[in-house]
Formats: sequence, structure tokens, C-alpha cells
Amino acid sequence: MSEKKRIGIAGLGTVGAQVVARLLAGAVPGAVVTAVSARDAKRDRGVDLSAQRFVANPLDLAAAEDVDVVVELMGGEGGAALELVQAALRAGKPVVTANKAMLAAHAEGLSDLSCVSPPVPLAFEAAVAGGIPVIKALREGMAGNEISRLSGILNGTCNYILSRMEVAKLSFEEALKEAQEKGFAEADPFLDVSGTDAGQKLVILSALGFGVAPNMAHVSITGIEQIAAQDISFAASFDSVIRLVAMAERRAETGGVFHQVMPMLVKKPASLAQVGNELNALKIEAEPVGSIFLQGPGAGGGATASAVLADISDIVQGFGRALFSKPTSAMKESASPKPPASEYYLRLALADKPGSMAKATQILAENGVSIEEVVQRSSQAGDRFLPVVFITHHCENSALRAALEALQSQQDICNEVLALPVFAEEM
Amino acid sequence: MSEKKRIGIAGLGTVGAQVVARLLAGAVPGAVVTAVSARDAKRDRGVDLSAQRFVANPLDLAAAEDVDVVVELMGGEGGAALELVQAALRAGKPVVTANKAMLAAHAEGLSDLSCVSPPVPLAFEAAVAGGIPVIKALREGMAGNEISRLSGILNGTCNYILSRMEVAKLSFEEALKEAQEKGFAEADPFLDVSGTDAGQKLVILSALGFGVAPNMAHVSITGIEQIAAQDISFAASFDSVIRLVAMAERRAETGGVFHQVMPMLVKKPASLAQVGNELNALKIEAEPVGSIFLQGPGAGGGATASAVLADISDIVQGFGRALFSKPTSAMKESASPKPPASEYYLRLALADKPGSMAKATQILAENGVSIEEVVQRSSQAGDRFLPVVFITHHCENSALRAALEALQSQQDICNEVLALPVFAEEM
Repeated sequence: MSEKKRIGIAGLGTVGAQVVARLLAGAVPGAVVTAVSARDAKRDRGVDLSAQRFVANPLDLAAAEDVDVVVELMGGEGGAALELVQAALRAGKPVVTANKAMLAAHAEGLSDLSCVSPPVPLAFEAAVAGGIPVIKALREGMAGNEISRLSGILNGTCNYILSRMEVAKLSFEEALKEAQEKGFAEADPFLDVSGTDAGQKLVILSALGFGVAPNMAHVSITGIEQIAAQDISFAASFDSVIRLVAMAERRAETGGVFHQVMPMLVKKPASLAQVGNELNALKIEAEPVGSIFLQGPGAGGGATASAVLADISDIVQGFGRALFSKPTSAMKESASPKPPASEYYLRLALADKPGSMAKATQILAENGVSIEEVVQRSSQAGDRFLPVVFITHHCENSALRAALEALQSQQDICNEVLALPVFAEEM
Repeated sequence: MSEKKRIGIAGLGTVGAQVVARLLAGAVPGAVVTAVSARDAKRDRGVDLSAQRFVANPLDLAAAEDVDVVVELMGGEGGAALELVQAALRAGKPVVTANKAMLAAHAEGLSDLSCVSPPVPLAFEAAVAGGIPVIKALREGMAGNEISRLSGILNGTCNYILSRMEVAKLSFEEALKEAQEKGFAEADPFLDVSGTDAGQKLVILSALGFGVAPNMAHVSITGIEQIAAQDISFAASFDSVIRLVAMAERRAETGGVFHQVMPMLVKKPASLAQVGNELNALKIEAEPVGSIFLQGPGAGGGATASAVLADISDIVQGFGRALFSKPTSAMKESASPKPPASEYYLRLALADKPGSMAKATQILAENGVSIEEVVQRSSQAGDRFLPVVFITHHCENSALRAALEALQSQQDICNEVLALPVFAEEM
């Protein structure tokens, strides 16, 4: 065995501390931790760091003579994390990061620094789906395939909330509170529940699967804040659940790749419907392989540390790879703004008076939206508006939007609308 | 890009023809097919081979000056396939193979030829679980983890038969016949239904996950021939299904790794119970990652070709790896003959006369096997023996075997016994 690679780690939170502890225990034979950096040098992290050099300024790891590989676990889209990664790549030092926000926002600059000759590896397995080796499966395991669709549950916080609303009949607010208490959601849950975090992961996967340069502006993002307990209950009456699905799909007719993060109705036999609680999952549809499904823990110290260790192992064995294999400027695939046709779950609040239903269905029909199933629940005395749910046949998104606009202009008949696409198990 | 790697392919069956067609279509940018070998040079395989050199004797690919990488898709445990792979490795040429029988039987010799300095890559993603990148996930994606258990559905033929018995209420024989008609089972189904094929795949996974040198003698193998329609139906009454589970488990108490291929009762919420028809799946339990689940097509031309293309892609990019990373002689982990304690599904044929049940339950109790649930179905007039099913509490395998022996010695009371372990979702 040649000399061990010397690892410098910036960020000693839950993940960083676990990575260091396992490296010290010999989890990756070819790696030795020589230097660490964190805000607070003195904090007890349950790991003996007396043999490691403590570096006050993380940026110094890039230039340090006793560091061959830089591991960035500080987080943050820009700032010190970005500066460190850029400096390390410029110094020709391989980098391991778990930072999806940084990769989604700065893919162009980082791929330029990584895809030089010879390439400087920039590994990021931990950035998407935590401990599930989705980067490896997609980039390497599916090499030689043509990917047609990626559909994933990429945010454990949202999946936990939706699962608890389903299983324990909680409201969104109650489920969010429980997720926060259990450590599955941040004090400020915006990045998670808004779908932003899942969108960042999706553009990274899309770069690998389709060769579309990451760009958050390509992703149509809707969060789960608008999902009510009644939607979970209506979904169940269609033998379905609601999942926040991150989806990238090659559009054969219009060209380009459509990107969307959105709560969707998922029929229960589908793999994605089986993904419960804080788990993550990714379904890869490709030719010639068919459909591959991966599931596991998408967050947490152990899962994320596992992915970081895998990246370190690859790099110390000489198997590190450049970010996205080529600069984003060389990626030719385009993003498509046009959503695919879909069935939809439509929840309308209809006025409890004669003719409302007739008028609503007429407006849908006039706009080319035809109805497959309807569920209406009995009214509570005094409710002026009652929820009615339709499952539509396949229709174009433009037709649906026109229908919804027409419905919402009739405020005396319909005062609220929620439309969720139905996940198509097969493309 | 440096010069393209020249690929020589031996074996042009369903998989080989697909691999060639996709390489010709540019599926792996750094690879070009220069030579092919097959029994019949003239057969129409739906792919234009006019630009490739046809080699009558596959062994010649190893020495050929126009071949950098040898792809072995002939199959067979020894013979020409083994000779070709050995000769190619000796010549320092990387090899890609889908041949699990060969790897399981000749791991020692092949690892010695591959694990030299510098290593000669021997890639085998297609040998286990077809298109699912389980080799990559386990060897690379889980690097740095300590694996505690691997449990997989690794034979699509058996899973198809068991699924059809369950869903379409077929007998074993009817389901086997259907599998043969659909091309999911060979004319001689022995290697599949006996569990041998799954065992070969399991020892390969165990070498990667646990560092146990492959040895088929380590694996306790039971096929699915003895599973009757009534077992599927009894399983359903326990909200369970029957799956042929290939399992390798680290035994903390006794040391070593236990290997078993056996039909097991799997509770329906478990991931493995969701794996239907000809699909394959692997569950990896490890520390710190937790539990990872992978599912996809385990056989068929497209799935296997996908895995072969992935291996070729790794090799042409310089990311090929030696077989098992080290010679089997350097593997130190031992196999354990002792099965873990388990709950069991016991089906007894009990005499339809007073006292039989009392006697049977007494024998179980005397041997330390305690009962959790019982199901007895109403009798058909004239049956002298009636099926009774017990689910036991956790018990040692030795206790169970003693109990079964004692039961079977009482031929007037009990004339048939089937015992299946219950799959424990968590270790």
C-alpha cells in the first residue's frame, strides 16, 4: 500500500464528528485525519482530536502542507464553504462535500475548477439522498443507459410530515412540530417544506442523468404547506398517498428535460408510496435497464457520514471523479418549461347550493378536462363551501390551468382550488 | 480524450448481442468493439457485425493485438469461459464477466490473477442481481461501513414462481410451467429452483460485504420445490408472503458469517415482501448508514447488458477494480455453520384424531419450542392427516431440529413437516 492520504476536515457538527471518529477507527484504510477546523475548538464532540492539528480558519486547509484531501462539511451556499472548495480545487486537492446548496448554485464555477487536466476530484455522494449511493448508481451504475425519468423522495422532512399526517391523522402544523421535536426538521423549516432542498438535489441528479447544467430556475417548485389533513384522507379514498416527488423527465415530444418538485398523488402499489417517514428514495427509469429503485436514510449523522466515507474511500484509492465529468458549459441538454400531460387530483371548495357541481363540471369540460372519479363528503351544518375532489383523465397542463382560472373567477361557486398531479408509475 | 479502448466480446446470446449493439451506437464513449466470438458466425442477431473481426476460438481474444478489454458472456462454470478469463488476466487485459457460477467456483484462482501489482480489473456487476448496481453499492457505496446483514431476492425465476402462486393461486408446477413459457425459467430449472444460483450470488456478495472467501460449501441451501399452494395461503393468513431469501449475517455471539438460501416467511410491510414477479432486490444493513434497499430487474438481456456496459464504462475511464480488491487467501473472515435463532413457520400434517394436537404441542414444548400462533383449516371428509400451521416464538435452530425429529418419529400422529424461518425485518 502506498502512503496514506492525509485528510483535512472543515466542519465538526454531527456529520463531521462521526466522519472523524470513524476515520480514526480505521474505517477507510488508506486515509488518516491530520487537520480539522470548526468554529469552536474546545467543544466536546465525543471524539479525541488531540492528535489532529486544529485550524482556526478553514480556508487554510486548502493550502496546508499536511492535507491531501479536503472534506467540506460546513454547509452554506456560498461564503467560507465555497471559498474553501474553490481554493482546494485550485491547489489540485480533491474535495469531498455534502453541500447540495453550494453545488446547485455554483455548478458552473466548480465544474470548471474540477474538470481540468488531470481532473481534480470533487465528490458529493452525501449531497443527495444521504446514505443511499444514488450518485454512484446513476453516474456509474447506469452508464451506457439512456435515462428517461428520475423520480425521487429527496426530502426526509417533508416525507416525515406527510407520513405522519397519513398514519397518525395529524394536521400539517402538528406533524411539522413533531418533526422538529424529533430532529427531522429545522427550527426554520422553510428550505425543506418549500421544496427548495429537494429542488437543489434534483438539479444535481439531472446533471448526472441527463447532462442538464444545474439551474434552480429550471425547476418548477411547490412545497407541502398547502396540503391539508383532508387531502391525505381524500387520497386514501383513491387508495393513494401524497408524496413530495422531485421529478426530472425527458420530454420526447417537445425536447428537453422537465424538472418539477411537487406534492403528487401516488397510488399505493407504487414503490414511492411505500417510502415512509424520514426515508428517501429514487426511482431511475432507463433504457435498456428498465426501472431501478433505491431506498434508505436520506439524512442524519450516520447516513451522511457513510456517504462521505465512501467518497473518501474512492479518492484515496485513486477512483475520484471530476464534478459532473465535464464542465457545465459543455452540457448541451436543455431544460423544458412544459410539464407533461398528467392525471390530476383536484380539490375544489364548492358552494353548498343547487347547480354548483353542474357549473364546476361544465367549466372543466369546456376546457377539455374530463373527469374519471369524484368524491364528495357529507356537509357539516353551516358550511357554505364543501370540499369536492375530482380525479381527472390525462390532460394537458395548459388545459388544466385554464379550467382552474375559469373556476376561480366564479367566486360564488368555487372559492378554493388545489391541483396535484397524479404520479404515473410507468412513463 | 485518449484513444478508445478496443473491446473483444465472447458470447453473442441475448446479452452479448445487446451489448454489441449499444456499444456500436456509442453508449460508452471511450469504447469500440473490434472483435467478437460466438459458436455460430452466421446467425442473424439483429446487429451489423460486418466491421468486427470474427474470432472462431474465443481464447484467441486474450492474445489478440486488437483487443484491450475482454468481455466474457459465454457462461458455464469452467471450460472455455474460465480459460478465456484466466488467459486475459495473465495477459494483463481487464475482463468484464456476468458469470456468477465461475466466480463462485474459481474465486481463489481468479482473485490471484486479478489482485497483482498493478491490479488487472475483473468486473462482474452483471453477475449478481442483473441491472441493479449491487456490486457498486456494496463495495463502493458502503465503503467505511461495517455490514451486519445482507438479505436479498437474487433469483428472479423463484420469485416469479412464488409471486404467481400467491397472486394467481397457481400450484408450484403450474407457476413453473408459466415461468418457462414466459422465458423466466430454463427448460431445466434445477439451478434456479434449487437455490444454487442464488447461493452463487450470495457468496460473491459476502466476499465484498464481509470479506469471506467464496465457498459454496458455506451456504445452507434449500430450494422452493417443497413450497405448496397451501403454504402461500397459510402465509397470507399471517399477513405474510413466502420469498426465497439469500442471507448472509454476521454472528456477533459465535463469530463468523452465516450464509443461507431458504424460503422464508416475510411479513407484508417488509421491503422484501413488496418485491414481485421476476424482480430482484437486496437489503444491506450496516453501521453507520442503517438500512439500504435496492430493487430492479435481476435478469434479461436489457438488465444484464446494462450492468456489462457500466463495467466497460468504468474500465475505459480507468476506474476498473481488482476482483474482491484482495486475493481470497488474504480474506480472514470465517463462515459460521450456526444459524441464528429465529421464529419459524411450521406446517405439520397431523392425524385427524383426538389427542394429535395435544401430543404435537407437547413435543414442541418439551424441546423448548414455544408457539405464538396456530392456524388449522377445516377438514375435507376422509383426510386422515390435516395441515396445521404454527408460528413459533424465537428459538434456537438446534431446538427446532430436535423437536421436528421427535415429531417425525411419531408417524401415527404427524407424517409430514415443513419448517421455514420467519424473516426478521430488523436484526
